[in-house]
Amino acid sequence: MILSSQGTEVIYGVHAVRVLLTRQPDRVARVYLQVGRHDVKAEQIEQLARSASRPVERWEAPRFESRLGHVVHQGVMAEVTPLRPWSEDDLYAAVSAAQDPPKDPLLLALDGVQDPHNLGACLRTADACGVMALIVPRDRAAPLNATARKVAAGAAENTPVVTVTNLARTLGVLKEAGLWVIGADAGAELGAQQIDLRGPRVLVLGAEGTGLRQLTRQRCDWLARLPSLGAVESLNVSVATGMLLYEALRQRGGSP
Amino acid sequence: MILSSQGTEVIYGVHAVRVLLTRQPDRVARVYLQVGRHDVKAEQIEQLARSASRPVERWEAPRFESRLGHVVHQGVMAEVTPLRPWSEDDLYAAVSAAQDPPKDPLLLALDGVQDPHNLGACLRTADACGVMALIVPRDRAAPLNATARKVAAGAAENTPVVTVTNLARTLGVLKEAGLWVIGADAGAELGAQQIDLRGPRVLVLGAEGTGLRQLTRQRCDWLARLPSLGAVESLNVSVATGMLLYEALRQRGGSP
Repeated sequence: MILSSQGTEVIYGVHAVRVLLTRQPDRVARVYLQVGRHDVKAEQIEQLARSASRPVERWEAPRFESRLGHVVHQGVMAEVTPLRPWSEDDLYAAVSAAQDPPKDPLLLALDGVQDPHNLGACLRTADACGVMALIVPRDRAAPLNATARKVAAGAAENTPVVTVTNLARTLGVLKEAGLWVIGADAGAELGAQQIDLRGPRVLVLGAEGTGLRQLTRQRCDWLARLPSLGAVESLNVSVATGMLLYEALRQRGGSP
Repeated sequence: MILSSQGTEVIYGVHAVRVLLTRQPDRVARVYLQVGRHDVKAEQIEQLARSASRPVERWEAPRFESRLGHVVHQGVMAEVTPLRPWSEDDLYAAVSAAQDPPKDPLLLALDGVQDPHNLGACLRTADACGVMALIVPRDRAAPLNATARKVAAGAAENTPVVTVTNLARTLGVLKEAGLWVIGADAGAELGAQQIDLRGPRVLVLGAEGTGLRQLTRQRCDWLARLPSLGAVESLNVSVATGMLLYEALRQRGGSP
């Protein structure tokens, strides 16, 4: 989880700190452990920090409280360099790099999701599913503000968000780079499980109620239906995101 | 969607009204359509109401506004009898009735979900996936209050919630009735897709962070792992609910 500060950010909790120390130790400036914590998880974090030549400080419990407020910090905190937002060029470079050798990039795009809570929830879900990046259009989209970051619960520090000027154009560029575009649509003929979600893919979800914009829909190679057996017309967008990403991971035989 | 009133409730929107008129016409007291709406969907709702001998009134647009406030009512509204909460006996009776002839009931139980937003989001998801009922323990659980109902977006009028005194005991009774209990657990060895979710099943989800209580876990026939590839330790509980229910519907070959 995150608190913004000047220039650096603070993440806390065993899992978040361990993940960053393991995957991107360069972004960790300093690690803080609670005085008296010498269990296996704390030892592992200390070991990871030492291997990466990162300083480890021991703090008394009240100091965590005064720095972080009332959160579940588990006596573990780190100062980190914020995740740099990706430009469109960063996105295309990452997709290109993922194709040689082929790594089958999985991207998520949100079309017209205007509520920061929903953006944060989708980012958290995308992060849990190993999505390479989350794409949002500059207009008709929620900003990645403090609310969205809080709901994302640390995912904003791990999965980059790419803000693009024209979503349809970006999807076109990604298609030319060999990715298939799959849009979620309540009225689609095929269920998600009937569409091949292995290989390089962009999954696109629209806002609840309005769905995908016409130009976005035209870019889709396939439209995928999700469950709608109930009284409510559509799923919450983060739940729909979770279902479609679950199905993609299942097909890919990874570790859902 | 719902607004509470004295004795009756009001639902609005084409989809919600059509679903209730189709599935439980007895609960609809009166239907309201906007003056001038004579499209196919409005005609269908009028036809359903007439078939069920329910009166249909035509209202001018401003009257919907003053009754409902600023919501997307689509010029369609109905006065309905509220869904009666189920007792534990109602639950057991419904499960028993669903087994002769066998209908493979699918139930959802939440263990220790204390946030009304999360309860509402799980109820909405359960409803979209055709769950027979949502089971929550009386203690350590969010109440089905106005916040939860609002987030559920009408699902509270379609999917019954059963509050039980002792969740572990209820799961035990359901097991004796032939249902298998599957709990979501971040540390489980098997992915959800490796567990047979066809047939009579109860899916159980715990609160984010703490997970299932020990007594609940002991009742589980299987524990299912969901994706956790990211910086955040657990999924939001409504997203996890969506993934597990998606997988159940996929295996059942229904229409996700």
